[in-house]
Amino acid sequence: MHRSKEQPLDRSITSSPQPSSPSPSGSTGSSDFLQLNVADAPPGGRADWLARELRRAIADGRLPVGSRLPATRTLAADLRVSRGVVTEAYQRLTEDGQLAGRGRGGTIVVAAPVTVATPDTSTTATRPTTAGTPRTPPYASAAPIPPHPFTAPPGPEIFDELRAAPARIDLSPGVPDLAAFPRAAWLRAERAVLADLPAAGMGYGDPRGTPALRQAVAHWLARNRGIRVDPDEVLIVAGTSQALGLIAQVLHRHGDPAIAVEDPGSLGVRQHLQYWQVATPPIPVDDDGLCVDALRASGARAVLLTPAHQFPTGVVLGGPRRRELMQWASAGGLIVEDDYDAEHRYDRAPVPALRSLLPDQVCYVGSVSKLLAPALRVGWLLAPSRYRKALADAKRFADLGNSALPQLVLARLMESGELERRLRLLRRRHRRRRDAMIAAIDAHLPGATVHGAAAGLHLTITFDQCGTAPCDTDLAAAALARGVKVHPLSWHRQRPGRPGLVLGYAARTPGDITEGMALLADALTVRP
Amino acid sequence: MHRSKEQPLDRSITSSPQPSSPSPSGSTGSSDFLQLNVADAPPGGRADWLARELRRAIADGRLPVGSRLPATRTLAADLRVSRGVVTEAYQRLTEDGQLAGRGRGGTIVVAAPVTVATPDTSTTATRPTTAGTPRTPPYASAAPIPPHPFTAPPGPEIFDELRAAPARIDLSPGVPDLAAFPRAAWLRAERAVLADLPAAGMGYGDPRGTPALRQAVAHWLARNRGIRVDPDEVLIVAGTSQALGLIAQVLHRHGDPAIAVEDPGSLGVRQHLQYWQVATPPIPVDDDGLCVDALRASGARAVLLTPAHQFPTGVVLGGPRRRELMQWASAGGLIVEDDYDAEHRYDRAPVPALRSLLPDQVCYVGSVSKLLAPALRVGWLLAPSRYRKALADAKRFADLGNSALPQLVLARLMESGELERRLRLLRRRHRRRRDAMIAAIDAHLPGATVHGAAAGLHLTITFDQCGTAPCDTDLAAAALARGVKVHPLSWHRQRPGRPGLVLGYAARTPGDITEGMALLADALTVRP
Repeated sequence: MHRSKEQPLDRSITSSPQPSSPSPSGSTGSSDFLQLNVADAPPGGRADWLARELRRAIADGRLPVGSRLPATRTLAADLRVSRGVVTEAYQRLTEDGQLAGRGRGGTIVVAAPVTVATPDTSTTATRPTTAGTPRTPPYASAAPIPPHPFTAPPGPEIFDELRAAPARIDLSPGVPDLAAFPRAAWLRAERAVLADLPAAGMGYGDPRGTPALRQAVAHWLARNRGIRVDPDEVLIVAGTSQALGLIAQVLHRHGDPAIAVEDPGSLGVRQHLQYWQVATPPIPVDDDGLCVDALRASGARAVLLTPAHQFPTGVVLGGPRRRELMQWASAGGLIVEDDYDAEHRYDRAPVPALRSLLPDQVCYVGSVSKLLAPALRVGWLLAPSRYRKALADAKRFADLGNSALPQLVLARLMESGELERRLRLLRRRHRRRRDAMIAAIDAHLPGATVHGAAAGLHLTITFDQCGTAPCDTDLAAAALARGVKVHPLSWHRQRPGRPGLVLGYAARTPGDITEGMALLADALTVRP
Repeated sequence: MHRSKEQPLDRSITSSPQPSSPSPSGSTGSSDFLQLNVADAPPGGRADWLARELRRAIADGRLPVGSRLPATRTLAADLRVSRGVVTEAYQRLTEDGQLAGRGRGGTIVVAAPVTVATPDTSTTATRPTTAGTPRTPPYASAAPIPPHPFTAPPGPEIFDELRAAPARIDLSPGVPDLAAFPRAAWLRAERAVLADLPAAGMGYGDPRGTPALRQAVAHWLARNRGIRVDPDEVLIVAGTSQALGLIAQVLHRHGDPAIAVEDPGSLGVRQHLQYWQVATPPIPVDDDGLCVDALRASGARAVLLTPAHQFPTGVVLGGPRRRELMQWASAGGLIVEDDYDAEHRYDRAPVPALRSLLPDQVCYVGSVSKLLAPALRVGWLLAPSRYRKALADAKRFADLGNSALPQLVLARLMESGELERRLRLLRRRHRRRRDAMIAAIDAHLPGATVHGAAAGLHLTITFDQCGTAPCDTDLAAAALARGVKVHPLSWHRQRPGRPGLVLGYAARTPGDITEGMALLADALTVRP
């Protein structure tokens, strides 16, 4: 494997050569290995065709994560198509989250699609078929493992148990770099808040949130998420988890106690909805995101999804899927848009929120948990007008409104531009960590397929086969025994699928990440 | 009316003479006016008898709020009983919250009992019977009043509407002196917290609260409320309102969706329980507190009460009633103890919490809303062990736990003794304000009976008759039209009763309070 010392890591992601496939290692100067024939393309659909072929090549391992694509000019010449066709195809995969432009570093494969590889959904057969045998000895569970959070199906306390489990390197997904929390700026803003706040501001307040924060969130959403909203329509909540509970209560009162969810999809989200007695029928996710056909077929009237960066696969909801989903919603469906880490896009501006397109059919949920710190417990909920009064009541009777001081401090950090500065800093830092993780996976876990690394705070790796699926809990247990904390992908699945691990990189240093991947490799290989 | 200039206000509360009753104004040197005959006392029950007679004299106006009782030595000599009999009787009424010892200032009547003066509960006939006609022209509604929060029965948004209504002098009950919030100490503690906190402290935490605050609350409860509890049993919540929602959810899961409540009792509490689909059968409150007989007769299996300082009447649950209630609970009843302002006792140490006596049958709820500021949204819940797991789950799925920084700052203020210093300061300040309000009522509203002024942040006044009851909403509306915000007592009743007003004094200066009472008198008298 080659990595130029002159280039920064994030501009030269490369993969180790695949012994049994045409080598795309390093910069892929030519497209020969794709074995494309433009005569296969339908007239007028060349960009579509090329995008599809590239997706297939990424999915089946001919273009592994980290490989560099040919320059648009080169590929256009090779294929004898116009350069615009190649640019458009690259752009589509970039929007998918599978490619990333690196300026003079070229265009890099940053994620492979996760596949729903269960027998009953094998229509999305994107498992490696031409890339030869897996490069890692198959992982199989053997010796008994002492009691740990992975012994039983995860219950309501699972995240507490995992948090309490001792581990030197915590790669649990879902937290930003907590060491970067802007303590000094927070304290300065708090001093200013306390100096200005009238005494009545310490009394009972509007349960929907302080006017200052509702205003700041409206401005933030306009600047960062393409959403135009009146501050009066913003409901401040105690994080996404509370928003889900409030939505569940309101849907119950509307007699609609089911919300379809992505599968794979967040275990925590599912647990929350289920606690609130909301059914969570699973809808498959493929390499374009949520399968809207399956959603339609399910008969569900509401769906929760993570369109900007699907959890845990990292897929960005593709353009055609967005349009399909909009059609579904326009016909009466309700979308709960969990925009949990949309701001953490490394390659380009994040895709606009669905809420910006169809405000009357979308409950939009955001929070500062991934921007600043989960411990703040601050988020926001924008809802269609018909639900707004009931949601405000639900918030009132939940807790009479969020704590005022953190709201006011946060409003100041948002309005002063401090939070955007912070986000830029975090993005750079997180990207370096993401790159370190990809490089370490590359070095230590060559049999793993990486998914969803174009954005966010985590990535997901899958393994081709793993004894009797799902055994990723055993792998997570073996990792924990070696001091590394990760989520088994199966936690985040409702239906069986390829085993894998969800790995948070944002909160760890590159050194810890590299060491963590080596320990993970040990967990994989030592156990024959 | 006489008030000595040398004595501080709180040591010489006196009332204006009652034209039609034997004058007890100023220091009551002799007991003649009580017209007591010790021959009426049952043998061995002289203290009981004297306490009963004193209560009756207070209730019917012969001993109005502010009057000073004879010295124990004097009364004992007058009645020809041992001094211990008088001391014990005074002590009982002191525990009731009706009398207060003022050192060399003597023993003062600080509150008259509120009576449940509805036709069907007239067993507690403590309405004035011997004190002659009311001294105020009867208040009756007449001219139409423009739209205001008092036009309709109060809905879920009533407190928001009242908060939004403009008024120069806000005497809404339930808030401490917000201007006294220790901003500098808070900021200092927050700086220390941010300096010490490990990065992981900004991540997701234990939904039951930070260990530091749970520990600090356990210490606080031991020092201030006579409660011994393991920190592990403390659940940190977002104020009493959230605690009620969590309890409601758990009782639902136990199939027990009814909690009897005091009547009169807090409207806000009732709204919360009802939102959570918990029935709230009303139990009368008399001058000894909750009528446990009526509770028993209601068949309710759970009751919520405010034993330390009943809201809104201010009655302290009497010793015999406490024993009766304990018996009821020991037989399987569940007590929800809302200890909302127990620390604000002006005359003596607060009565111990019920939780300290019967931990297995009491859900204890406290908060900093009355100690520091409602805007902090921090409280605590101690529950019998059989409910603890379900309550922790309910908290987890409500919001994953309170915001961490306010918890940690508060823990520091509690453990450093700052909060107790603050409480002592507040108590002194609140007592001055309480005294100013009593004096102003005395001066401007001589027809009003004052209740529950021995503790807390508010007092209640009732009027003997008022056209067609309940018309205190009209009175509150007339007060609001004059720039004074108060709660009509009828808001806090489920069944009809004497009209009245609930007046918060803690958050206003003595000047505002005096002016507010004058405006209230205007609202009363101008409208014939």
